[in-house]
Amino acid sequence: MKHFVDPIQACGLHVIADLDEIDAEVLRDASWLESVLLDAARAAGAHVLSSHFHHFGGEHGVTGVVMLAESHISLHTWPERRFAALDVFMCGRADAREAAAYVSRKLGVAEPRWRVCERGAKPR
Amino acid sequence: MKHFVDPIQACGLHVIADLDEIDAEVLRDASWLESVLLDAARAAGAHVLSSHFHHFGGEHGVTGVVMLAESHISLHTWPERRFAALDVFMCGRADAREAAAYVSRKLGVAEPRWRVCERGAKPR
Repeated sequence: MKHFVDPIQACGLHVIADLDEIDAEVLRDASWLESVLLDAARAAGAHVLSSHFHHFGGEHGVTGVVMLAESHISLHTWPERRFAALDVFMCGRADAREAAAYVSRKLGVAEPRWRVCERGAKPR
Repeated sequence: MKHFVDPIQACGLHVIADLDEIDAEVLRDASWLESVLLDAARAAGAHVLSSHFHHFGGEHGVTGVVMLAESHISLHTWPERRFAALDVFMCGRADAREAAAYVSRKLGVAEPRWRVCERGAKPR
């Protein structure tokens, strides 16, 4: 297993997505959210190393990370706000936008608010 | 343990930091990088849930995440480029900028390239 590093300046895209108006119940379901993020990783062509999800208990939300050969996907949820904060950082040929779109669709988010950052080393 | 959610629009700051000209050897040292990120979390006033670090082996880099009650810190390294991609997302009173500055200092980065994104639910 290795990093898939582009031999150019930008080593990847980092999508920062704020997701509103989500059903509160799904934002407490750590197992289901984990399966969504794992499927999103695969849909984007990324390679999963491991995944780690934590439910804060009761009515509270979930914090989860999927670690990838290509970097990571993270999700933090606030059911009381019907809100989730997603970020997807993927290097190489995996498609961070595809993964973010997949998660947004599965959470039923009509209007995800995205920012896309190019990441990478300074050119030499 | 609970999320520390601000009762306002922005629920936190997400610092995206690209870090150059780092000694390649430290970028392969998963144990040391883990200790740096854990110390950064505490320096910023955050509460650690767990940490997960993976070395890709040999001359390759490291992927690591520290999961927080306040969200997460992640680091991905490319020793062959002397480059590391850091992101710090913290909600509530924890200071994401402080954590990012701490990691940058420990990695000996003179000129970190930062972007700061405000994250949060839409105002109601």
